[in-house]
Amino acid sequence: MLNELEIITHLQKKFPSHIGDDAAVIAFSGTKRYVITNDLLVEDVHFRLRYTTPTHLAHKALHVNLSDIAAMGGQPQFVLLGMAVPLNYADNIKLFLNGFSKACKAASVILIGGDTTKSPDKLFISLTVIGVAEERKIKYRHTAKPGDWIGLVGQMGHAHIGLTALESVTTGLNSFKKDFLKPQARVLEGLWLGAQSGVTSMMDTSDGLLIDLKRLCRASQVGAEIYLENLPDTKTLNTACQRLKLDPIETMLTGGEDYSLLLTIHPDKLKTIAKQFNAAFGYAIKCLGRVTSGKGVSFMQNGHIKPLTLQPFSHFGEQL
Amino acid sequence: MLNELEIITHLQKKFPSHIGDDAAVIAFSGTKRYVITNDLLVEDVHFRLRYTTPTHLAHKALHVNLSDIAAMGGQPQFVLLGMAVPLNYADNIKLFLNGFSKACKAASVILIGGDTTKSPDKLFISLTVIGVAEERKIKYRHTAKPGDWIGLVGQMGHAHIGLTALESVTTGLNSFKKDFLKPQARVLEGLWLGAQSGVTSMMDTSDGLLIDLKRLCRASQVGAEIYLENLPDTKTLNTACQRLKLDPIETMLTGGEDYSLLLTIHPDKLKTIAKQFNAAFGYAIKCLGRVTSGKGVSFMQNGHIKPLTLQPFSHFGEQL
Repeated sequence: MLNELEIITHLQKKFPSHIGDDAAVIAFSGTKRYVITNDLLVEDVHFRLRYTTPTHLAHKALHVNLSDIAAMGGQPQFVLLGMAVPLNYADNIKLFLNGFSKACKAASVILIGGDTTKSPDKLFISLTVIGVAEERKIKYRHTAKPGDWIGLVGQMGHAHIGLTALESVTTGLNSFKKDFLKPQARVLEGLWLGAQSGVTSMMDTSDGLLIDLKRLCRASQVGAEIYLENLPDTKTLNTACQRLKLDPIETMLTGGEDYSLLLTIHPDKLKTIAKQFNAAFGYAIKCLGRVTSGKGVSFMQNGHIKPLTLQPFSHFGEQL
Repeated sequence: MLNELEIITHLQKKFPSHIGDDAAVIAFSGTKRYVITNDLLVEDVHFRLRYTTPTHLAHKALHVNLSDIAAMGGQPQFVLLGMAVPLNYADNIKLFLNGFSKACKAASVILIGGDTTKSPDKLFISLTVIGVAEERKIKYRHTAKPGDWIGLVGQMGHAHIGLTALESVTTGLNSFKKDFLKPQARVLEGLWLGAQSGVTSMMDTSDGLLIDLKRLCRASQVGAEIYLENLPDTKTLNTACQRLKLDPIETMLTGGEDYSLLLTIHPDKLKTIAKQFNAAFGYAIKCLGRVTSGKGVSFMQNGHIKPLTLQPFSHFGEQL
């Protein structure tokens, strides 16, 4: 079986330079561009119905896609909703649609079309979201340069802790569970970062920081060093990991579904951008490491290379 | 369970005037508009893997969506491919992707993005196609007027005959099987018809002529009369129906998946349009009946009402 990377590589050969970012960019009027993304959510691959309410699912389906638009520096505008619905979900459809409408309205996104059909078994959701961005404010993955700082806007590993707690039916840990069940796309942050010329590349973290950083490095033909001492060291996260028998470092580096923004920042601009971001949003950009002229991602602790063996994230044990 | 009509009606209340046509229309530059459609193909709802090659499936997935763009009078330009792939389809993915690339290139459509993921069980395909149209050439469903002629560009019931033959493992009938397995969207015809001001409304037939005509009538708040003597009476179709124990009239009226263009034509323009269409494409627009000021669709035979009881089309016995 081709994995997602192999499929993308296969298609990139056939349609050079048109695929690979969080969203595709097509012409609009004047200096404006449309950015378009399509994301699937599949029952028992991305979510379980036994602990996911229709309202949360609708919210998440939208925000997973909004996050792609945010990662490009775009303002989401339109959505098309595709759904294949099994009979056993029939009673939840109204709740789902109401939740979806509410989430769209909260994000100022207009539903303009889609398709609904039966599904023989599992619930499938396919969303296409269209956003608008100024051409010069759009951020890509292939533009990081050696020496840039690697920044993260949002959480690392929180959604994975939530998922682990939900899967193992562990009580409490509600804020982590909410991070998994109802992620909030960082649309305003994406727009703000898009407007900063010092932000040299950007993407969102959906499959885990490490795998996503590797994708960014591959697209930019650079390497990266992560400074482990820069990872957040919070009591809440450590306690939760201990309870769930998770390694905190591994969880932060490989846990998926955080929908944070991963970006690179020109070294001359780091101070200003970090300060102004903090002033605008009331929280900090995490400075995780540097872009290198090498290949792949390595880990450093207090100036020394630290080899780590990490398993890539998968939702329910299957590799994505 | 809400059916598709109920879902659309439910959503139309929440997002008035933004949904209901074959494709959504959004701004582009100057007098140009983008038309965007999203269609799902679900294994064992829309297709069976046992008689559908990856190449045919890829072609069909694209053309089902191209047909929506054609129905709006648009020129397809871009596509996003979403796929949830079960393990048992893994060996076919390369063939599918190659077939998809070939079908895109033949239609001058560029793949710009999408999403691939595992599926626990069934193969699930979601395509989003974006086309371009001149604003004044876009055709809608809600603009048919009483007195207009009802025209059909393409076949009626052929795909259903093909599907029935495939499902019943009947030998021969290959051209009908091909009509089901590898439909050809009528993109050039749609563009040509879009440019005719005398074409007052248009849509494609995907779920069967009758159900689609009812949708057009509902959108336009009109009724329709079908003249049964105007239905094509071909030996090939009659023989095939006899072999498969299908009623020819019912098959033509309710068989789905033909992806023909259903349109209405201003009575003053019918002659010219019919003549010029024939000259341009080498086949005729079928004149099936008239739009009325009434409600619903009725059937006439030689000037008299003929009541017909028809079952709506479904692929494999389930109502869509």
